Amino acid sequence: MVFKRKDLLGTRDLTADEIRNLLASANSFLEIAERPLKKVPALRGKTVVNLFYEPSTRTRTSFEIAAKRLSADAINMSASTSSVVKGESLLDTVDNIQAMAPDIIVVRHRHVGAAHLIAGHIRASVVNAGDGANEHPTQALLDLLTISQHKSLESGLKVAIIGDIAHSRVARSNIWALTTLGITVRVCAPPTMLPREMEKIAGVEVCRTPEEALEGVDVVMMLRIQLERQDKLLFPSIRDYARIFGLNRQRLALAKADAIVMHPGPMNRGVEITSEVADSDRAVILNQVSNGVALRMAVLFLLGGQGS
Amino acid sequence: MVFKRKDLLGTRDLTADEIRNLLASANSFLEIAERPLKKVPALRGKTVVNLFYEPSTRTRTSFEIAAKRLSADAINMSASTSSVVKGESLLDTVDNIQAMAPDIIVVRHRHVGAAHLIAGHIRASVVNAGDGANEHPTQALLDLLTISQHKSLESGLKVAIIGDIAHSRVARSNIWALTTLGITVRVCAPPTMLPREMEKIAGVEVCRTPEEALEGVDVVMMLRIQLERQDKLLFPSIRDYARIFGLNRQRLALAKADAIVMHPGPMNRGVEITSEVADSDRAVILNQVSNGVALRMAVLFLLGGQGS
Amino acid sequence: MVFKRKDLLGTRDLTADEIRNLLASANSFLEIAERPLKKVPALRGKTVVNLFYEPSTRTRTSFEIAAKRLSADAINMSASTSSVVKGESLLDTVDNIQAMAPDIIVVRHRHVGAAHLIAGHIRASVVNAGDGANEHPTQALLDLLTISQHKSLESGLKVAIIGDIAHSRVARSNIWALTTLGITVRVCAPPTMLPREMEKIAGVEVCRTPEEALEGVDVVMMLRIQLERQDKLLFPSIRDYARIFGLNRQRLALAKADAIVMHPGPMNRGVEITSEVADSDRAVILNQVSNGVALRMAVLFLLGGQGS
Repeated sequence: MVFKRKDLLGTRDLTADEIRNLLASANSFLEIAERPLKKVPALRGKTVVNLFYEPSTRTRTSFEIAAKRLSADAINMSASTSSVVKGESLLDTVDNIQAMAPDIIVVRHRHVGAAHLIAGHIRASVVNAGDGANEHPTQALLDLLTISQHKSLESGLKVAIIGDIAHSRVARSNIWALTTLGITVRVCAPPTMLPREMEKIAGVEVCRTPEEALEGVDVVMMLRIQLERQDKLLFPSIRDYARIFGLNRQRLALAKADAIVMHPGPMNRGVEITSEVADSDRAVILNQVSNGVALRMAVLFLLGGQGS
Repeated sequence: MVFKRKDLLGTRDLTADEIRNLLASANSFLEIAERPLKKVPALRGKTVVNLFYEPSTRTRTSFEIAAKRLSADAINMSASTSSVVKGESLLDTVDNIQAMAPDIIVVRHRHVGAAHLIAGHIRASVVNAGDGANEHPTQALLDLLTISQHKSLESGLKVAIIGDIAHSRVARSNIWALTTLGITVRVCAPPTMLPREMEKIAGVEVCRTPEEALEGVDVVMMLRIQLERQDKLLFPSIRDYARIFGLNRQRLALAKADAIVMHPGPMNRGVEITSEVADSDRAVILNQVSNGVALRMAVLFLLGGQGS
Repeated sequence: MVFKRKDLLGTRDLTADEIRNLLASANSFLEIAERPLKKVPALRGKTVVNLFYEPSTRTRTSFEIAAKRLSADAINMSASTSSVVKGESLLDTVDNIQAMAPDIIVVRHRHVGAAHLIAGHIRASVVNAGDGANEHPTQALLDLLTISQHKSLESGLKVAIIGDIAHSRVARSNIWALTTLGITVRVCAPPTMLPREMEKIAGVEVCRTPEEALEGVDVVMMLRIQLERQDKLLFPSIRDYARIFGLNRQRLALAKADAIVMHPGPMNRGVEITSEVADSDRAVILNQVSNGVALRMAVLFLLGGQGS
C-alpha cells in the first residue's frame, strides 16, 4: 500500500489504483478515532506546516487533528500573521518554510495552481487543501470514502452534484476522482454557475434541472452557495435559488430510495438544502467530517512516512 | 474522587461535595507546576478543543497549558477564523467538531446558555469557559481554591463581591459556589449594575455601599469594569466610579485585618482597585492565576479521564 | 558549554566566549534537522510561551519549531487576542503569564527595552525576539552561525551592513556581536536612516556610499526597507533607493570574490537586492533561516535546561 508521489495536489491525475489505495489506508485509520487513546507514533519527529492563505476552520482543524494523532508537530501559519502583508512573494515565503525543514506543507490559497507552484519548488511534500476553484483533493477522497461505506464504488453508480459547479474545487476534485473510477457524474447548476468545459469530460452528464439530475441517482452532493460572494450576483435571489435548486424532501424522492445525501459544509440551511433533508438519516454529512480526519491521517502518513 | 458529570457548565447545580472534590483534585495538580518536568501522561491521546467565540488570552492560555501538561492534544479554534463568518449555526459548527472525535470542548460564547446548548447536543464533555453574563465555573472554582489556601471554606466566612455584578459571569459563578458551601456573600454595585434577583438568593446580602459590604469580611473580590463596554454608560464617569466603588487602602481597612483581596483580571489599576492594594501582600490575584492552571488540569482530567 | 544567564536580551553585553559557546551549541543542533525524526526530549515537560506584540511569521514559527523539536510545550500568544485590548499593562500581562509557570518567554514588542523590563520582573527566562529598533539577538547569532560556515569569525573579517540602519534591530544586534568578536563592520545608509552614534562604536566604519562599503568585504548584509513604514518618507522614492543603495551584480563585484550575501528577510526583490543576486550561489539567505531553527534550539536548550 505505497503511495509513490511526493505530493497530493489534485485528484485529476490520480489513477484508480492510487485512489483505491488511499481509501484503503484511510479505512485503517478510521478505527483510531474510536480508541480511548487516539494517537499513534507514526509521524513522531515529523513537522507538518498548515499554511492557510484563506480563512478556514474545519479543514485546518481536520489536518491539525490528523497530524497530532499521528504524533507529528503541527505548526499553523495563517495569512493574517504572515509575511504576505510585508509584500513577500509566495515562493520566497515557501522557500523560508522549506529552510526550516518541514516534512509536509498543507496549503490553501485563493489562486489556482498555488499548491502546484509550491510543490514544484520545494523538497517537502505538499498537500493541496484548496487552490482557488481548482482542486481540493482530500475533500473528494473523504467523499469517496463516505460513499464507499454505503455503496460500491464502481461503474453503474450515479452521483448528482448540484450547485455552484463553476466556483467549486470540491465539485472539480470529485468529478475527476469519480469519473476515474468509472462512476457517472451528473452536474446541475444555474447557467452562470456552470463551466462550459463540463460537457466535454467523459463520464459527466450535464442536466438542465435538478429533477433531471436527481432521477434515480445513488448519491446526491449539494454544493454550498457562497453567500459571502453574492455581490457578484450569479443568481437573482437566494430565495429563488433555494426554490429551484435547493434539495428538499420532494426532490430527494426522485433519487433512489437508498440514496445518500452529502454536503461539504458549512451548510446554508434553507438555501441549498432544507433542514429536514440535512438532518434526515439519508444525510451522511457528519460522516464526511469524521472520515475527513482518517483520510487526512492516511495522506499525511503516506507522504510523511516515506522519509523515515 | 470521582466527578460523575459529563460536563462542567456552571457552579449553580454543583453540590457541596462535588465542589470539595474538584478542589481536592486541583490541590493534587498544584504540585506539578513546581516540578522541573511539568507534564503527566494522564490525557495522552485525548483531544481538547478550545472553541472561543470571544477574544481571550488568559483563559484560553490557561486551558491550553493545562491540557498540554496533561499530555492531551490541544486544538485552538477562534471565532475570527471560524465558520461563523460563513453563516453556519452554532450547533452545526459543534456537530462538525464532534465528528472529529474530540474528548473535551472548552467553549466561550457571548450568549447565555451556549455551553448548555452544546453540551446537550454532543457526546464530548463540555467545559463552559464563559457564556455571556451567566457562568464561568472554572473561574469560581479557582477562586475557591485560592480562598481555601488562606481561609477555611465554611459557614461563617464572609466574602464581599464589589463591582458590575449584573454583567459578571465571574460574580454569578462565585455566588452559586460560595452560597452552596454556606458562605455568606455580600454584593455591592451601582444600581445600574445590580440585578434585582440578587436579593432573593439565600446567603446573599445586598449592600448599598462598599463600606457596608467590606465591614468585617474575610475576602474581597473586586470585579473588572469593562471599560470597552462603557458606550452603554452604566455610570457617569470612570473617575466617579473609582472614587465611590474602587478598593483603596482606606476602604480595605474596613475588612478583617487578614482579609485577602481577589480580582479575576485583567485589572484596571486606578479604577476598581488601586495599585497600592493590588500590589500589597493582601492581594492573592496572581495566586488565582496559578491556581487556575491546576484547577483546569483537574477539570480536564476528571472529565477526560473517564472514557479511558 | 554552559550559558550562565537567565535571559538572552541582546548581543550588546555578551562576551566573545559566550557568543562562541552559543554558536558551538547551535552547531550541535544543526544535525537534528537532517534526521528522519527531528525531535529530542531535551525540554520535555517545559513550557515555552511565544508572546508576540508585533505580527511575525518566520521568527515566531522558527521559535515554535525549535521548541517543539526539543519536545517543549509551545504556547502562542499574539497581541490581536491579548489582554492589551482590554487595557492591561505589559507587566500585569507578564505577571499573569509567569503565574502559569512557563520556563521561557519569547517576546517581541515594538517598544525598545520591553524584553529587558519583562526579564527584570519575572522568574522565567526571557528571549528578546525583537524590541523596537533596539536588539534581535537570535537573528544576529544565526547570522554569525551562517558566516562561520563560510568564513573564520576573527579579526580581519570585514562585514558591510547596508540599508536602514536606524530602524534595524537586526543591524544593531549584528554590530554588537561582530565588533565583540573583533570583526570590522562597515555601515552604509541614506543620512535619514543612519544614527549618529554609529561613528563612535569601536570597530564600526561609516561609509558614505555602498561602493565604499562593499570594497573588499567578506560579507554583505542587506537590510530590508520597510515599505509599510514609508509614510514616514525617509527617502524620496523606492526607485531611487534601489538605484543608489540596492545590491546588484555590478555592486557585488566590488566585494571579495568569495563574499557571501545575507538578508534577514522578508526581501523586497528589486528594492534592496536584485533577484539575480538573491538567487545566486553567493547568497546564503535561506541558510540563515535553517540556521535560525538550530540557533534557537540552542538558546532554548541553554536557558530552559538549567532548571532541571
